[in-house]
Amino acid sequence: MPETQPEPLHAIVPAGGAGTRLWPLSRRAAPKFLLDLTGSGRSLLQQTHDRLRPLTEGGGVVVVTGAAHAAAVLQQLPDLGEENLLAEPSPRDSMAAIALAAAVVRRRHGDVVVGSFAADHVIADTAAFGRAVREAVGVARAGYVVTIGIEADHPSTAFGYVRSGDPVRLPDGATAPTARQVRGFTEKPDAATAAEYLATGEYRWNAGMFVARADVLLDHLAAQRPELRAGIDEIADAWDTPARTAVLERVWPTLEKIAIDHAIAEPVAAEGGVAVVPAAMGWDDVGDFANLAGLLPSGEDGVRVLGDAGHVVADDAEGALVVPRAGRTVAVLGVPDLVVVDTPDALLVTTREHAQRVKGVVEGLGTARDHLR
Amino acid sequence: MPETQPEPLHAIVPAGGAGTRLWPLSRRAAPKFLLDLTGSGRSLLQQTHDRLRPLTEGGGVVVVTGAAHAAAVLQQLPDLGEENLLAEPSPRDSMAAIALAAAVVRRRHGDVVVGSFAADHVIADTAAFGRAVREAVGVARAGYVVTIGIEADHPSTAFGYVRSGDPVRLPDGATAPTARQVRGFTEKPDAATAAEYLATGEYRWNAGMFVARADVLLDHLAAQRPELRAGIDEIADAWDTPARTAVLERVWPTLEKIAIDHAIAEPVAAEGGVAVVPAAMGWDDVGDFANLAGLLPSGEDGVRVLGDAGHVVADDAEGALVVPRAGRTVAVLGVPDLVVVDTPDALLVTTREHAQRVKGVVEGLGTARDHLR
Repeated sequence: MPETQPEPLHAIVPAGGAGTRLWPLSRRAAPKFLLDLTGSGRSLLQQTHDRLRPLTEGGGVVVVTGAAHAAAVLQQLPDLGEENLLAEPSPRDSMAAIALAAAVVRRRHGDVVVGSFAADHVIADTAAFGRAVREAVGVARAGYVVTIGIEADHPSTAFGYVRSGDPVRLPDGATAPTARQVRGFTEKPDAATAAEYLATGEYRWNAGMFVARADVLLDHLAAQRPELRAGIDEIADAWDTPARTAVLERVWPTLEKIAIDHAIAEPVAAEGGVAVVPAAMGWDDVGDFANLAGLLPSGEDGVRVLGDAGHVVADDAEGALVVPRAGRTVAVLGVPDLVVVDTPDALLVTTREHAQRVKGVVEGLGTARDHLR
Repeated sequence: MPETQPEPLHAIVPAGGAGTRLWPLSRRAAPKFLLDLTGSGRSLLQQTHDRLRPLTEGGGVVVVTGAAHAAAVLQQLPDLGEENLLAEPSPRDSMAAIALAAAVVRRRHGDVVVGSFAADHVIADTAAFGRAVREAVGVARAGYVVTIGIEADHPSTAFGYVRSGDPVRLPDGATAPTARQVRGFTEKPDAATAAEYLATGEYRWNAGMFVARADVLLDHLAAQRPELRAGIDEIADAWDTPARTAVLERVWPTLEKIAIDHAIAEPVAAEGGVAVVPAAMGWDDVGDFANLAGLLPSGEDGVRVLGDAGHVVADDAEGALVVPRAGRTVAVLGVPDLVVVDTPDALLVTTREHAQRVKGVVEGLGTARDHLR
């Protein structure tokens, strides 16, 4: 890739998903992306914005979120600007959200490169993230839909995988530094399959980051999902006009609910139109308390605390995660890998092994405890 | 034993001990005996009083407690009468407490039979308790110090044991129905020793219940611990006079700190002066949360709740004990035999296996959390 001015990037940040596996920390009214889950003082959304700012000079950041969270997002991101917050009347999955943002950005800025980055992931190595995104933007300019493939350091069964093939050749004949053609995407595998994936060296985790020219993305949508594309265009045409609300209310509920992975990434990969930039960046989707524990530093007693460690008294609880968010003293004794999440109105006690099952607890709260969701 | 009128009994209830292993439920200001630990609506002290009332007709009940808890005891036992509450200025172990009560009762009522029963134990079978106490009173009238030996249904290492010998022969030549001479007392044994004890059929748990004529008890004290007996006499002489406070303040702090087991039971047993009435009565000293769990009924999900089960959501937590005393929802997932004690200012999470170690947690609270003790 020749030395050029960096392409301007318009980042799209879908801020959705309750993070049910992080209950009772995450709630309907306080979804995961609004929470500080690393003790940094910044929410996951704010950290996402912090990471994207230096990469979007000359471009910008657009956040797509549910109407219920619009005010909270603007409060957390005072520099975003109201015009860069797109509020969805209801959740219609990632394709509608990203396509709407891409269509609005395209009308405002032309056929720029857009990139979608979830608001509720953690990335430890910001520099590595930046390098990967910059390469992805260059490859996207050449017409690819580009994903960033996370180096899999263990055979996780919690993530989907992206399989890479030959190196990407750019229009000027050069080879991209690290980007490769994508041979396909896979759903979350079982443990044996995940181990096989790792052994080949061809598979990386699919972190759901997609970078493409706005016109390329929307052309793919037109080819794959013409009705969805038409609906998005109708809304985007009205967005910066007084008709926005009326059109949004009429059209949005009719849009197909589908993830960008199924709507575009998978079928376009089959046609050879998707590339992957591999990267190791300490990425984590903070999917459950086991992941969260892994992100926090361990105290001398082997206990990880999200919050004020002065609230925690631990004995023989190696690997435990304690979230003392009710301001009370939490004493844990003799249960390794324990998970204790203490909030003012609800307390969860489980172990890291069972962290994935917290979703079932929330479902089991029943109508009498609906206010705790 | 010939049919006679039941002897009147004056029960002595030492109400002391913080019950540190039941923290954070029990506190300095809310010791174990003041708590309702069975969900019956009555504290352990109240249940003790309820049990003793029918056995003390013609006699009475005297409670000995720390000055700090005198008001709470009178509030819980409105029928006790202030004159039957003996407040200790400071804890000086069980011999001083019981001897003082026996000496005061003797001055008020003569050489009646007194019996000491801890305020913080649980007895499921009140009728069996009553039968054992009535027999013990008869044997005590004949001059024995009588203990009640609890049938050991498992080789517990948490209790001391009492070893029985030949049947007790009463002065009229008859044999007591079940009472036997005591061959000796033992401290808490290790598991192997406890198993050997059970195999002999001679050992029963020492529940710390002692029944004797007041004069017999105080004569033994004079023989074994003459200085302690002299101090007790000095205080008892002043008790029902205006000099009580002054004498108590001067003499009480000088009294030897010793348990009745060491001061009287063991040496007098060696002389052949102690008898044991064996009994099975569902006795438990509620020494820790493992014991407490065993006393509570199990829900359909295998979880035992002390408090409102409506606050508890459990999945895959067979054998767990949950005490939801902060009014919050407590969700437990995937940890069998878990112990969760949720109070407004402190939370304990451990397992039944580690219940004995809770004492160490309290010791580890440090000065910064002294208010939580």
